[in-house]
Amino acid sequence: MNGADALITTLCDNGVVACFANPGTSEMQFVTALDREPRMRSVLCLFEGVATGAADGYGRIAGKPACTLLHLGAGYANGGANLHNAKRAATPVVNVIGDHATYHRQYDAPLNSDIAGWAAPNSLWVKSAESPDEVGPLAAEAVQASFGAAPGVGGGCASLILPADSAWLETTVQGPVLAPRPRTRVGTDAAAAMAARIKAARKPVVLMGGSCCGEAGVTAASRLAAAGVRVMTDTFVARMSRGAGRFAPDRMLYFGEMAMADLEGVDLMVLVETTTPVAFFAYPDRPSVLVPEGCEEASLCGRDADGPAALNALADALGAPAQGGVEDLALPAAPNGRLDPYSIGASICRHMPAGTIISDDAVTAGLPVYTSTKTARAHEWLMLTGGAIGQGIPVAVGAAVAAPHAKVLSLNGDGAAMYTVQGLWTIARENLDVTTVVFANHAYRILNIELGRTGAGNPGPAAKKLLDLGSPRIDWLQIAGGLGIQAERVSTAEAFDEAFERAMSQTGPRFIEAAL
Amino acid sequence: MNGADALITTLCDNGVVACFANPGTSEMQFVTALDREPRMRSVLCLFEGVATGAADGYGRIAGKPACTLLHLGAGYANGGANLHNAKRAATPVVNVIGDHATYHRQYDAPLNSDIAGWAAPNSLWVKSAESPDEVGPLAAEAVQASFGAAPGVGGGCASLILPADSAWLETTVQGPVLAPRPRTRVGTDAAAAMAARIKAARKPVVLMGGSCCGEAGVTAASRLAAAGVRVMTDTFVARMSRGAGRFAPDRMLYFGEMAMADLEGVDLMVLVETTTPVAFFAYPDRPSVLVPEGCEEASLCGRDADGPAALNALADALGAPAQGGVEDLALPAAPNGRLDPYSIGASICRHMPAGTIISDDAVTAGLPVYTSTKTARAHEWLMLTGGAIGQGIPVAVGAAVAAPHAKVLSLNGDGAAMYTVQGLWTIARENLDVTTVVFANHAYRILNIELGRTGAGNPGPAAKKLLDLGSPRIDWLQIAGGLGIQAERVSTAEAFDEAFERAMSQTGPRFIEAAL
Repeated sequence: MNGADALITTLCDNGVVACFANPGTSEMQFVTALDREPRMRSVLCLFEGVATGAADGYGRIAGKPACTLLHLGAGYANGGANLHNAKRAATPVVNVIGDHATYHRQYDAPLNSDIAGWAAPNSLWVKSAESPDEVGPLAAEAVQASFGAAPGVGGGCASLILPADSAWLETTVQGPVLAPRPRTRVGTDAAAAMAARIKAARKPVVLMGGSCCGEAGVTAASRLAAAGVRVMTDTFVARMSRGAGRFAPDRMLYFGEMAMADLEGVDLMVLVETTTPVAFFAYPDRPSVLVPEGCEEASLCGRDADGPAALNALADALGAPAQGGVEDLALPAAPNGRLDPYSIGASICRHMPAGTIISDDAVTAGLPVYTSTKTARAHEWLMLTGGAIGQGIPVAVGAAVAAPHAKVLSLNGDGAAMYTVQGLWTIARENLDVTTVVFANHAYRILNIELGRTGAGNPGPAAKKLLDLGSPRIDWLQIAGGLGIQAERVSTAEAFDEAFERAMSQTGPRFIEAAL
Repeated sequence: MNGADALITTLCDNGVVACFANPGTSEMQFVTALDREPRMRSVLCLFEGVATGAADGYGRIAGKPACTLLHLGAGYANGGANLHNAKRAATPVVNVIGDHATYHRQYDAPLNSDIAGWAAPNSLWVKSAESPDEVGPLAAEAVQASFGAAPGVGGGCASLILPADSAWLETTVQGPVLAPRPRTRVGTDAAAAMAARIKAARKPVVLMGGSCCGEAGVTAASRLAAAGVRVMTDTFVARMSRGAGRFAPDRMLYFGEMAMADLEGVDLMVLVETTTPVAFFAYPDRPSVLVPEGCEEASLCGRDADGPAALNALADALGAPAQGGVEDLALPAAPNGRLDPYSIGASICRHMPAGTIISDDAVTAGLPVYTSTKTARAHEWLMLTGGAIGQGIPVAVGAAVAAPHAKVLSLNGDGAAMYTVQGLWTIARENLDVTTVVFANHAYRILNIELGRTGAGNPGPAAKKLLDLGSPRIDWLQIAGGLGIQAERVSTAEAFDEAFERAMSQTGPRFIEAAL
């Protein structure tokens, strides 16, 4: 057994059985060791941002980490933006970052870099295995840390640096099996105190994030709603369990002034697995903090807590019923005429099967589809938590690996899809049951909106050119086809509805360009 | 004038007139200010790694920085790998990284991150403009720093963080024009002392890097060769001026044991604008330091020096003639039969016009083409200095913007090309005179070689699958076509020769898939 064997075996013993890989020379020992550990599924990605986004998608669905395999500091950097999103989603991820042999680092060979420095901003935990005997124990520690390394923190990235000699040298040391740090619990006294504050408030609101937005949390939240408390979620959450049979909390609105109008008169904001809501961006003369003047904030629990249990404790203290109201299944009529995000949302609502997982990187088109699918069959919605576009395809890859029997739907703005378009090849290669939709409006549409809001004035030709994707027009049929996925382009609501129904009735990779 | 105006004007005043941009909301003021400063050419890139690689290519050819425009820490991360290559090339680059408004950072909005932490590993200089009055002066400082911020260091990245409010608020302060730090000079005494050591040595060698590999350096080096001294270059240099009419120094070999055999008996290694040669990777039981036992090392000058002047001073001290021997133009006959990197090298040698700039990210195919073009018309060869594949297309973008009248040739392994394939769209959009060649061997071929060298054993099916790109086969004609470039696929030496000749006789974007 060499260090690479110890690593992979320890990862598998700790439940990490998927590896999204983009290896190089320093990772060859890991690569060949894969054939000695059949529990680990390895998935090749053609770019590191695909590997890291896939690990995020996997972790959101599986509730445990996948690992990435990255080539030194530069490889980590390429995956950094999607790890930023994973960090904001509190997704457990274990990064295995190859490095030069320990004795070789001092010579500062061309690929040498400050890997720990690169990894620090996005990682809860960064350590390097300086000998083969350290590899296994640190691998176990990394998995444990990925579930939350410190009080107050949810899950996130644990980055294990693996020098080449620590991988190739022999060892007899395997890592232990380590249980994740237990989530903190809200006691009945704290719940009762909060219930009293809620009862005393004129217009209370509960704002929840993190695991509260999964099925157990939403069920608990329905009880609060039944007790007359308005429940909202953060604007962007890692995973929203929604659709028919589930309670639908409100969503904090994206634009600050709209959010403030929506919250008018609220005098108590109870935070559950989240923190003070703030505007996504600052704009001249607009609010940063989205809490009305005079409104008290009160944290029921932080991100390291069992939020669903806290919600249930609060509901108990409020004397709420055991279950609140849920959405009934309601599917719209077939849309017709002009193709737009609303008609697309109607088609998605009509045809997606129960249990569909949606990876949403659709930017301006995302909200109309979201609102259109409130009463669809029950589904899971994975959002862009960190604002770094380019996760829609990779997160779908990982979700499909985590849930091989679910239909996965990847929704992408055309600008966003281009960041990590290489992920389509992995979908084809692994024959994943992913239907990818690209909203082709040939613009960074969101920036046209944001530009006005920043007070930057009227854009001239140079500015307009930086927001325009129309010259040349990206031909998505060719791109998807070139990466091995059968694709079609539709430009009417009827055609989309047909194409989407067909995609939902089959399994395997499909691609639809929605020509807006 | 707002802070964004002050920034762009100061950059232009200091000679920075190209911006490779991938902006977001926090950069909208910069974007609209572009229309008020016609000296700045802005080029939209669909992914940050394209923008940073383009800035590297621009800087290598222009000898001065371009700027990038990146969206917060996640945007910087996406561009990090190509900035690693730029760092290793000592290319001056100015990164403008947008940030949240200063007062908004404290709220830790979703895109907030430790930008300075991200930027540190690759940057010579990182500062944030905390008010609009600081923007102009810091912009001037950044440009100056990009040419070399400290003794001993060549050029590199200067990263200026631009909070949104520093961009949108009014200011009256423009930045000064600052001259780059002067390069250190080697005195005649030091040159004479080194000449004496060379004369006393049995088998001396001069190893040069950095600007020594440009035209002035190569001319100076030819004098040393005429005086009987073997001259070599680093394995990977930022820019090699070569071909007919130029002296051709030897190149340090990539694999350590071959390099050591090549250097057998060398008793003095004189380093000029470079440091001790080391193996690219460590392997079990192979050397890390590529200096023969008992060989003395002697540094004539470091990376902050004027290397060509140092070479000339040394040549003077050796009593060398004013000019040494150069390569004669020698073009091979038309190749025929099997298409391989050697036949492709012959075609490139035959047809590329004088002044061609080659952006080489061809991995295993690169060396055969390099050796095949030694006697071609004079050209500039830009290498993968940092080992992070995925620079071949972006560096070509930047080189073409810097040298609009030159033919640019982008050579790429298929694996490498996929990292930053989005750059093809920018080539099409800007109608750049770039011919892109992809060597489609449908594998990470280099890793098949490296795997054996690392002693990782025989790869099983799982390992083999991680080195294979053949399932599905990437269809490069569709990908290039989808991004707006006319493409053709060739599979014989004759067909490549014809296609390449045609590409060289026209201007504008062309794409050739070499089906190996």
